[in-house]
Amino acid sequence: MPTHKNTITLLISCPDQPGIVAAVSSFIFQHNGNILESDQHSANNGSTFFMRISFGEDHFFLSPSELRDAFQPIAAIFKMQWNVRYSRQRKRAGILVSKLDHCLADLLWRWERGELEMDIPFIISNHPKMEGLAHAYGIPYYHFPVERATRSADQQRMADFITDQIDFLILARYMQILEPFFVERYHNRIINIHHSFLPAFAGAKPYQQAFERGVKVIGATAHYITNDLDEGPIIAQDVIHCDHRDTPDDLSRKGRDVERRVLAEAVRLHATDRVLVYENKTIVF
Amino acid sequence: MPTHKNTITLLISCPDQPGIVAAVSSFIFQHNGNILESDQHSANNGSTFFMRISFGEDHFFLSPSELRDAFQPIAAIFKMQWNVRYSRQRKRAGILVSKLDHCLADLLWRWERGELEMDIPFIISNHPKMEGLAHAYGIPYYHFPVERATRSADQQRMADFITDQIDFLILARYMQILEPFFVERYHNRIINIHHSFLPAFAGAKPYQQAFERGVKVIGATAHYITNDLDEGPIIAQDVIHCDHRDTPDDLSRKGRDVERRVLAEAVRLHATDRVLVYENKTIVF
Amino acid sequence: MPTHKNTITLLISCPDQPGIVAAVSSFIFQHNGNILESDQHSANNGSTFFMRISFGEDHFFLSPSELRDAFQPIAAIFKMQWNVRYSRQRKRAGILVSKLDHCLADLLWRWERGELEMDIPFIISNHPKMEGLAHAYGIPYYHFPVERATRSADQQRMADFITDQIDFLILARYMQILEPFFVERYHNRIINIHHSFLPAFAGAKPYQQAFERGVKVIGATAHYITNDLDEGPIIAQDVIHCDHRDTPDDLSRKGRDVERRVLAEAVRLHATDRVLVYENKTIVF
Amino acid sequence: MPTHKNTITLLISCPDQPGIVAAVSSFIFQHNGNILESDQHSANNGSTFFMRISFGEDHFFLSPSELRDAFQPIAAIFKMQWNVRYSRQRKRAGILVSKLDHCLADLLWRWERGELEMDIPFIISNHPKMEGLAHAYGIPYYHFPVERATRSADQQRMADFITDQIDFLILARYMQILEPFFVERYHNRIINIHHSFLPAFAGAKPYQQAFERGVKVIGATAHYITNDLDEGPIIAQDVIHCDHRDTPDDLSRKGRDVERRVLAEAVRLHATDRVLVYENKTIVF
Repeated sequence: MPTHKNTITLLISCPDQPGIVAAVSSFIFQHNGNILESDQHSANNGSTFFMRISFGEDHFFLSPSELRDAFQPIAAIFKMQWNVRYSRQRKRAGILVSKLDHCLADLLWRWERGELEMDIPFIISNHPKMEGLAHAYGIPYYHFPVERATRSADQQRMADFITDQIDFLILARYMQILEPFFVERYHNRIINIHHSFLPAFAGAKPYQQAFERGVKVIGATAHYITNDLDEGPIIAQDVIHCDHRDTPDDLSRKGRDVERRVLAEAVRLHATDRVLVYENKTIVF
Repeated sequence: MPTHKNTITLLISCPDQPGIVAAVSSFIFQHNGNILESDQHSANNGSTFFMRISFGEDHFFLSPSELRDAFQPIAAIFKMQWNVRYSRQRKRAGILVSKLDHCLADLLWRWERGELEMDIPFIISNHPKMEGLAHAYGIPYYHFPVERATRSADQQRMADFITDQIDFLILARYMQILEPFFVERYHNRIINIHHSFLPAFAGAKPYQQAFERGVKVIGATAHYITNDLDEGPIIAQDVIHCDHRDTPDDLSRKGRDVERRVLAEAVRLHATDRVLVYENKTIVF
Repeated sequence: MPTHKNTITLLISCPDQPGIVAAVSSFIFQHNGNILESDQHSANNGSTFFMRISFGEDHFFLSPSELRDAFQPIAAIFKMQWNVRYSRQRKRAGILVSKLDHCLADLLWRWERGELEMDIPFIISNHPKMEGLAHAYGIPYYHFPVERATRSADQQRMADFITDQIDFLILARYMQILEPFFVERYHNRIINIHHSFLPAFAGAKPYQQAFERGVKVIGATAHYITNDLDEGPIIAQDVIHCDHRDTPDDLSRKGRDVERRVLAEAVRLHATDRVLVYENKTIVF
Repeated sequence: MPTHKNTITLLISCPDQPGIVAAVSSFIFQHNGNILESDQHSANNGSTFFMRISFGEDHFFLSPSELRDAFQPIAAIFKMQWNVRYSRQRKRAGILVSKLDHCLADLLWRWERGELEMDIPFIISNHPKMEGLAHAYGIPYYHFPVERATRSADQQRMADFITDQIDFLILARYMQILEPFFVERYHNRIINIHHSFLPAFAGAKPYQQAFERGVKVIGATAHYITNDLDEGPIIAQDVIHCDHRDTPDDLSRKGRDVERRVLAEAVRLHATDRVLVYENKTIVF
């Protein structure tokens, strides 16, 4: 896609009916926006409509508050849930990690290169191990230990620290189960990488499970966290072939490659508002 | 995508400027069309705009001729090249084949199952070999021999037969080079399957070439025919891994699988008007 | 691999220890066999050794019975389980099918082309629908209805018919659960195609399950049948990407392509004795 | 594969004839080696035989010099070209890089994690840019500028520096054409990553070429350098799908992922002596 310095993106869902695209695109045109991308989808047997539409900000007549006021009547007519995003306001992504560095190292490298349009206000870990890596990229690093006995209180402290510093969270192989209050606070805004092709091999040690089952393909799944472990909406998945010669260590090695590119892709999509959640599934525009 | 019995699809290209989507979608809405799919793309550094937009025919107010008349002023304003397609008018695809049956057999099987929305008025071959297969599916089969010395006249006879019986042609491993007059008559409407990942291994015997080069991946390419051999706009491509154990015969066997699914995909896309050609490239919506 | 008219293949498993390869390869050499392919693998932390070794039959000194007698002492020393296969004795594969024809049509087409080195003594179905397809390839077709109330007796009649007409069975979308007595009779010789990437979406309607879960990749699995439904040793798997636009029908369409190539690959491997089963997993040489 | 601390690997090529495997495996067994891996291949219509065979060093009776002496008579009988490798002698890989860091960063990260069994005595660049990255991993960094006018002398200085510090060289996006004397000195020991699916888009700016051609798949190729630019033996290749929405920048971004995993795979294979070159092709065991 051609690069435009500043864009405005509308994300819309509403009951499907004729006239939605006409109303939205006419609104944009009347205020001098040039549509750059537009995607739509009808789900639920065509009864629910989803739309993502981007247009240039530079010559657009309305300020953010004017846009909100002016668009509200259209939203009301069509019973829309909607929000608006300005590309110049980069999303803020906090990263949580435990002891394995491949996903974190890969995200940071891509981020520094400009592949991921976001800021990273902090990296949090339940271990001190990744501090050097965080600092190499100039990112503040916080060590929040989590103990089984005090998990809820530990995560409460972590949540109190995070508050609204971030727009979304990335679990880059963060090996702690998050408490329900935490998950609910960042509903559909916590991206996890699971090291299997879900729903196969949910739970612990998926590569060992895969080895024991003798599968010929392994994979990785990036998904939003819900309170049902490994059951949240899937954003991206990919796989790699394997065979009887692969030990569990080989599967881990191959899998790391898949994990890091699947997580990076999910983060890239989320950071550019390309993911809409609907009934525990995602629409990826 | 939800199935709708009858749809109308507009295919549009024009210089990019604000207001196109608003004008088109408002036009559809005003005449009671409900947009089902909409895709757009800007190419040539954003200066040329392409759009494919589908809406239900059942409650649409305008007849085909009324639609043409009513849309013409909008097309004129935006300097559009455009055409319209009614899903109830299935495209007619003539198939040309030589001696290898895998692509033909696969197309016919998919067609009978309903995967390919088109009619097949005839199968033409420069050999008599596939007559039984054609007749098993109830399709008329015509044997048009082509000799080197008389190729132009031979193809002229074939063209005289085909005339306007078809909307597009499929070369399902048809091993004759088509004459320029023939190619021009069906400009961007002749789909060929080349048994390599173009532009690698253009020309004859690509699997032998691939074997001799020692590649680790082979592929297939479906493209529109132009007068530059194997240089036309690419519609679909896919690949399969190979290694030193693969003989040229193994490469052919593996390649056949790729060829038939790539050709079928290109035909499916073309038959549903999802392919737009722009500067020897395709936009696939 | 170079084509050799007649080959002899030894399949061996035994406790691992030094000297196995030397003993086997010296045996072959002493009787004038030229080794064409040799593969080995140690499983179970290196304690169990598996080998597949092929050599030309044409100049080999020993007849089949002589080979058995002469090799027996070596087998005894190393506590081998072993068997021998002559490529000129093509395996006999009976096919079972229900109402969906894509896997059957694909197998028959590949078989006729020479991709699958086997004979097909019969096709059995619980429906009459595929008779025409079977007869088009000159293969006897038998209709064995299976009713829920009489399933065991129905399958007994089928088993009585099959007896030892075959070396292995292919379930080409045969939608009946086989009785334990049936599964045991053809232990590790019944190949099934499951239309999901197992262990994800075991059981009924996997494409509907995949649609509801919102996965971004679907797959197919060819495996040996055991009495644990969809839990038998996996022979081959492959996948295809999908997204939110894919309806359950689209998933079925895409999945059919994967199913037929995965089943064909598993059949090709089994027919050429390339699959060894070990602890509910396969070693594929 | 099970991990064994110390292994010995024989790499053999010779005219094919009966008895080779028996002779080699008996030799190993007689001196108390337990074969861990064995792969063989016949090329050139079966006239040339290639073998890679690994066995444990720990209980093997022969020292390196004894092995050479004892194996020489067997090698003479079969007219073998052969060499031997001890896993405890890690290969030394010098890395050359220019201004793009993705391949280098990925190699270093994998190397530190233990994915690549080799030492890295130095990193050389024609730019000073990567010094920080090299030093972060504790690897000496040398800046060898190369100017068009003095290229031969510049590379001579570089060669004088390298001499026999290394077993092989990795061009991790090193954007200088190497002089023939340099290529010949490290014949089949210089691994390059080309950012296209060769032989498509050889030469400069392959992603731009791919964009202009409108391909639907892009790839990367790791190959040994010869004096025919981009024509050397291919070690590994992989691809990724793309479409009309991908700008040249998007192709570069997607391609970087493929480049780094293809180069890492080729390096891993070479470092463990799994690659044999034969007639400008590779056999990868």
